[in-house]
Parts: sequence; structure tokens; C-alpha cells
Amino acid sequence: MTQPSTKQPKSASKRGLTPQSEDFSAWYNEIVYKADLADLGPVRGSMIIKPYGYALWEHIQRNLDDMFKATGHENLYFPLLIPMNFFEREASHVEGFSPELAVVTHAGGKELEEPLAIRPTSETIVGEMYSKWIQSYRDLPLLYNQWCNVMRWELRTRPFLRTTEFLWQEGHTAHANAEEALAETSQMLDIYANFSENWGALPVFKGEKTAGERFAGAKDTYTIEAMMRDGKALQAGTSHYMGENFARAFDITFNDENNEQAYVHTTSWGFSTRFIGALIMGHGDDKGLIMPPLLAPQQVVIVPIYRANDDEARARVLTQADAIHTELKALGVRVKVDDRPGMSPGRKFNEWEQKGVPLRLEIGPKDLDEGVAQLADRLSGEKQAVKLTNLAQTIPDELTAFHEALFERARLFKEAHTVEVSTLDEFKERIDAGYFVYATHCGDAESEKWLQENTKATARCVPFDGPSAEGTVCIHTGKPSGYPRKVVFAKAY
Amino acid sequence: MTQPSTKQPKSASKRGLTPQSEDFSAWYNEIVYKADLADLGPVRGSMIIKPYGYALWEHIQRNLDDMFKATGHENLYFPLLIPMNFFEREASHVEGFSPELAVVTHAGGKELEEPLAIRPTSETIVGEMYSKWIQSYRDLPLLYNQWCNVMRWELRTRPFLRTTEFLWQEGHTAHANAEEALAETSQMLDIYANFSENWGALPVFKGEKTAGERFAGAKDTYTIEAMMRDGKALQAGTSHYMGENFARAFDITFNDENNEQAYVHTTSWGFSTRFIGALIMGHGDDKGLIMPPLLAPQQVVIVPIYRANDDEARARVLTQADAIHTELKALGVRVKVDDRPGMSPGRKFNEWEQKGVPLRLEIGPKDLDEGVAQLADRLSGEKQAVKLTNLAQTIPDELTAFHEALFERARLFKEAHTVEVSTLDEFKERIDAGYFVYATHCGDAESEKWLQENTKATARCVPFDGPSAEGTVCIHTGKPSGYPRKVVFAKAY
Repeated sequence: MTQPSTKQPKSASKRGLTPQSEDFSAWYNEIVYKADLADLGPVRGSMIIKPYGYALWEHIQRNLDDMFKATGHENLYFPLLIPMNFFEREASHVEGFSPELAVVTHAGGKELEEPLAIRPTSETIVGEMYSKWIQSYRDLPLLYNQWCNVMRWELRTRPFLRTTEFLWQEGHTAHANAEEALAETSQMLDIYANFSENWGALPVFKGEKTAGERFAGAKDTYTIEAMMRDGKALQAGTSHYMGENFARAFDITFNDENNEQAYVHTTSWGFSTRFIGALIMGHGDDKGLIMPPLLAPQQVVIVPIYRANDDEARARVLTQADAIHTELKALGVRVKVDDRPGMSPGRKFNEWEQKGVPLRLEIGPKDLDEGVAQLADRLSGEKQAVKLTNLAQTIPDELTAFHEALFERARLFKEAHTVEVSTLDEFKERIDAGYFVYATHCGDAESEKWLQENTKATARCVPFDGPSAEGTVCIHTGKPSGYPRKVVFAKAY
Repeated sequence: MTQPSTKQPKSASKRGLTPQSEDFSAWYNEIVYKADLADLGPVRGSMIIKPYGYALWEHIQRNLDDMFKATGHENLYFPLLIPMNFFEREASHVEGFSPELAVVTHAGGKELEEPLAIRPTSETIVGEMYSKWIQSYRDLPLLYNQWCNVMRWELRTRPFLRTTEFLWQEGHTAHANAEEALAETSQMLDIYANFSENWGALPVFKGEKTAGERFAGAKDTYTIEAMMRDGKALQAGTSHYMGENFARAFDITFNDENNEQAYVHTTSWGFSTRFIGALIMGHGDDKGLIMPPLLAPQQVVIVPIYRANDDEARARVLTQADAIHTELKALGVRVKVDDRPGMSPGRKFNEWEQKGVPLRLEIGPKDLDEGVAQLADRLSGEKQAVKLTNLAQTIPDELTAFHEALFERARLFKEAHTVEVSTLDEFKERIDAGYFVYATHCGDAESEKWLQENTKATARCVPFDGPSAEGTVCIHTGKPSGYPRKVVFAKAY
């Protein structure tokens, strides 16, 4: 049950990092610990999100939460423990979640009359309460969200990507009709895509899941799928239209404007700490992390440069570093002076590069004489002298440019690693080579399963802006397309 | 196991509220549901924190978190589940917490090899990890905090005051020596007191707990105790100095500057959703809640007044209401226009008074003719005409004045209900009458227990600024005082 903490993969030295090209998976496992994002917890499958990782989550949370509130949602908090019988009320929901439940059987020194599950997601307890809270059309829409921890007992776990416990937000809304519920589902998917691209600098495929990949209990599931730098997909956020499924299971009815009883239409949508995994694998390189500036725990690090024992130079350089720190902080820049004594600038550079801080300012006595600092860019690796008098302009501009360049790099990578195929052989070949593959598919669950078993690719989604499937047939069965557009397939995390 | 939702005490009508003087406890239970702060959950002892209650928590969280960060603390996240054997390592900790644990015995469809407890507090798992993270004096101090849910299986539960699950923050720090750890304990207590008084408008007794009231495993426990309007005490935040207790139990050692191995000194400090209960009972009156402006979900509500069917007046009034809304919102005021159709202004007034919104602006056609609005103050009940052209000044000023008046009301109440006694008879009489009582106490655990059993009063703390105990003897045993100052006793939640 217990696991060793801070597992250091054997292949890597204390400071070195396995290159992505050599072993992407080893690179990921190493960088999570080396950059101090997380540590393994004492219980199998659990992790501690350390301050550098948690700060990322705080920025994700704050910005998404602002977007939720701007679209009329309110936060609330539901209990952690759910009576086991709640799961049995929606047939496909119980099938999807019951194998993964963690169950409390004893509390307060006694065996409980009924076992309680730690929430894997809250549709059931939300449904139970909404049936009490909603009486009339005047109570609708109900636009609620909660930030919380959830638990799914999975066998193979990896930090951020799949842990028994994770942090997320789950929105749960109830509407008077299908149109409004579908508009909500779509609005929240747009928010996730906007956030991923414009905050996380991570372009996504936005589309609908196939039946086989739908959320347990949903009528339609929409998703954003991001491409990692090994060509694999990571589902970064999902938005579900439940139709009347949960309303019928939990008897959530309302009196409509004609005073007739009707079922509400519900939605749910979630975004989790998995996205930290997406940021790591979607942007990182052989040197380590590359943080998108808008979410980066630190945007700028200032490294003072001076010869050991030259106290005068040290004092001069540190004074200037502190002045810059104060100036940038006042502008809202997340900046830090790395004045750790007895540590060489080179080691500091390595450490901050590994942690993916976008910009580094180096200041030495010669720079001060010339009124400049050396600005190093984590993405391009380039260094330029920048005027000290102009930093209040330069740094925010460079951070904006950094975000744009990072997004553009990811967009080009995504474009270069997405292809359209028309035969099964091509499909296999491109999937094996690490591509996202657009292919026409008949929509049969059996065929989707066959493809997964034989190529390891899953149907990620039917992207809204993907190529039309008109006049084409399924690459596997030869049957007509099951969707108006081609499906994008990929190996996935 | 299950409990009915939205339990409405029988004594109160749908809109009415039992007066505090008649039955304070009934008043509390009613207002929690009527003001829509919370609802009972389906599992015994659980609750849903509804949006109006959760918004309070968000303001508490945001402001406290800013203070933690300003004093150098970083947030992180530890796992929910803790191996049962961890609790056994610190003798008094296991004694204090094991009777209240909720235990997961099954997960993923199988029985676990070792049962896992849902955290009641995280000292043990923090200790386990700190022993791995801390090697050298350079790693100290470690100043970490987490915001999370915890669970303590209590028998008698009440919303916010005592629920099986609650939300809180728990800070956990490690230091090289006792002085630094004690300075941290004291700094965090000051932050809690400052927050309670200057954000929550709730004055507190700040002091040290007696041995009998200490946290399980702590060397010293410091507390802030607030006075509710029934004269009972509510512990609103605690800060603990653990000495080397947890360091020894979890082997948290470091190499000091002389390269000698030493145990760290740890602290922990917590503040929870209980504080919402303190705000309810510390400020509320017979009409309902009174929200401190700095934490209030809504600071100002605008109620448009017009005759039914007078569409022209309605349009004029609503246009002005929206303009004021925009103007105040731009200033950062949390303001809402209550334009619900078909609901009388009187009913709206009642509802917002019950919810404790500090200021209400009424705008009718006659007001508009005169260029004014009617400003009603929830605390004083007074109404005054205020110029529409001057609201950007008036409203923030009135909110500040409201906070001050609310604090002053609570301070005077606290002063008027605190007495010093020198005999056991006086002690009993004053405790029965709902006072906080300063008394000299010998410090014997047996005597403290006797007092609790015979008077229902507990030793709340030894306030730092309380009267000196010099030259006095214990009101119960006649022995010399166990503390330099008198102990404050009260009945408590």
C-alpha cells in the first residue's frame, strides 16, 4: 500500500534530465519532482501538490473562477460523502463509477448503517438536493459550481494525470429546457477552450465525444483535447449535457409557466489539476518546464552576478536587483530575486530554466556601468541587453510576446502533427508515428473498440471545425460516416 | 443515518423568525436556513454550504490568504486519506482524534490492506513528509498552509458550528528553534485576531488555553474567543506550538549550522467555516443576520419602488437603479439591483434585512424628482435621503461607518457581559446569567473539570490583557493561581 516518496527514476542523475526524445515518460516523471511541482504521498496513488505546483493551480483557479462568475455562476459546497444507494439511481452512472469508489464503512468508532462513498463526482448528491431546491420555473436556471477534491480509485496512477484524489471544479446547472441547457454546455466548453489557449497558451481540439467516450450518464459530452509534445492527447476539460437523465433519476421537476410539471435539463462541466500535466507535457522541453506567463508562479527571476568576495559589487548589484524587484512587483509582475549566497549563477540559471520561469534578468557590475541588464528568454534561449530605465515597459511587453510565441509554437506543433487519412493502413502508420489522425468513422462502438485494441488510438472527439466527412466512408468498416465531420483519433493519456 | 433536508423548526412560521431573547438556539437554526446560508445534507451531520454562505467563506478565504502570503507562507495540498498507523505515533494526538475518525476500508472494489482515515487534521501526514523534505537548516523555516476539507465524526452537529465535514485552512510550519516557532505561533494568532476584528467586526479575547483545553499533541495552544449575543463563547481560531512533539514522533530532524542533528520545532494554526457561525451569532438580531461590510456577499441592495402598472415610473426608476449599480460596481462595491417583478418592496426589504445586507437604497419616482435615494441602514434601522450625485462618496463612507458601528456594538456588548469575580457563588451566578467571567484559577485539571460539570462553564483562555492574578487565590480550590493572570470562563459552543 505504501510507496516510496520522491521516487527518482534511476536513469537520471541528480541534476540531469532524461531528454524527451529518449524517453518522454521518464522525462515527465523526472521533471515533476525535479521542478518541485509534487511529491508522492504515503498512500498508493496519492500525491502532495507542492507550493510550486499549487501556485499554478491557484492561478488556474482564480482565472477560471472569474470567468464562471462573469457568466452568472455562483460557488457553493456539497458534502464529500455520498450514500452508496445514490449511485444506483442512474444506470450508466453507477456502471461507470462504482468500480472506482473509495468507501467509508466505519466512523466515530462504529460501523455505519449504510456505507458512504467519497465523491468521484457529485451529480448524484447534486441531483438529490436540486430536487428539493427547484419547485418552479422561477428557480431556473440554477447555475452553481464547486471547487473541491474528488476520489477515483484507479490502478495505474501518475502525478497530475491520474491520482486517486484530485482537485477540480465541477459546475452543475439546471435549466427549463434542452436549448438553454445545450447553450450552457457549449458556453462552458468555450470558456475552457478560451482559458486553455489564452491563459495556458495551449491550443485545443474542441468537439463532441463519440458515444463510447461519453461521461457516464450524459446524453452529449463535449471536450477540449490538447496535444502533448509526444503527440499524445490529453483531455483537458469536459462539458456534459445530461438531458433529463439525472432529473428522472432524482426526480428534479418544476412547475413551468403553464403550471405543468416538467423535468429539468441538467449539465455538468469539469476542469481539474490534470491541466497541470497538460501544461508540463504541452510546453516542456529537454531543459525542463516552460511556464505560460499568465499562469506561471514566477514570471521573472532576477539573478545578481558578482565575484565571490567582491562585497562592494555584491552590494551594488543587490541594491539594483531589489529596486527592479520593487518596480516590477508594483506593476503586478510575479518576480523574485534569487540572492541565495554560495550558489553559482550557473546553477541558479539551470534551476530556473528547469522550473520554466519565462524571463531571467541577469545583473552584474559591468551591466550596471552600462545601465542595462541581460534578459534571457526561456523559450528562445536568446539573451539581449535591456535598458534599466525602460524595464516597466520591456518586461510586460516581453511577457506578452512570450505568451504569443509559446502559443504559436504549440499551434505549429499541433498543425504539423495532425493528418487526415483515408485508409486503415495510413491510420495505423500515422498513429504509430505519434500523430493526431482525422479519419471518417462509422460510429459503431465495436469498431471504435477494435481500433483502440489494435492501434491504441481512441476517438478523442469530432472537432467542430474538422474536415467534412461528406462523401467518405469509415476507414475501418467501409460503412457510411456516423458523423457530419471526421473524427480525430490519437493515443491518449 | 439520513436526515430530512431544510429542517424548519416548528415554532417559526414561514417568514417569521423566533426572537433571540425567546430562544437563541431556535433563532440560529432558523436563520441559517431562512437566509439561505446552508441546507442539511442527506447524510447525518453533513451540510451543503449554499451560495450566500459560501460567498462569505470566499471573502474570509481571500483576505486571510492575502495575510498569510504577506507573511511569507505558501499554499500546498496534502492528501485526504491518512494511514491509520500514522495517528498512533503521537500519543496524545491519537487519544484526541481516533474516536472521531471516518475510515475507508474498501476501495476500487477491494478491501484495503490497511484502513485509511479521512483527515481530521493533517499534522501526522505533514510530519511524515516534512521528515523527508527537511535535511538542513537551509530548508528552514518551512512556512506552508493548505485550504481543505476535514472530517470529525461528532455526535451532536449544528450547521457551521459542528458538522462532520468542514472547510478550513491549516498552516504547518517547521523552525530551527523554539523562539522562532513561538514567534510564528504568536504572529498567526495576531493575524486571526486582526482578521476577526478588522474584517469580521468581531472583538475577541486573545490568550493561551489551559492544559485541559489544549490541542491534542500541542505544547501550547493559543486562541481567539468571540462572544456570541447569548453570552456564550465561540473559539474562532487557534494557533499551536508543538515543541518537538511531532518532530520526535515523525523523526523530523535537520543538520544545524554546526552540522549537528537536531529536531525541528513545529506549529500549526487553523481557521474554519465555524467563523461563519461566529458572524451569525456575534452580530445577528431579531430581524436576522447583520453582515460585516468587508465580508458581506452583498454590501448594498437597490430596491426600485413604483406602483404596479405604472410602466413609465418603472422604466425611469430601473434606469436610474442600473446607473447606480454600474457606478458603485466600478468602485468595487458589491451591489445588486432587486428588480424581481411581482414582489412588493416590503417583502424585498424583509428578505434583505433577514440576509443582513448592510445598506439598502430605495429609489422611487418622487426621489428621482428630488435627485435623492433613501438610504436604509441595517444596523441602526435609520433611513436618510442621500443625493444621487454624491453616491460614489456616500456609499463607501457609509460602509466604513457601518463596520465601525458594528464593531463598537460588539465591543460594548462584550464589555458589558464580562465580569471579574472572586467567589464560587458569584462565578456560578454570573455564568448562569450568560456572562464571561474572569476568575483566578489554580490550574488543576480536576478543578477545571469540576467547574465544567457543575456550572457548564469552560476555561476559554488566559487572556494576554486580562486582570492580574497577583495576590488572589483560586475561586474553587483556594490554592494559589496557576497563571500570572485570571482565566476567562464561559459557556461555549
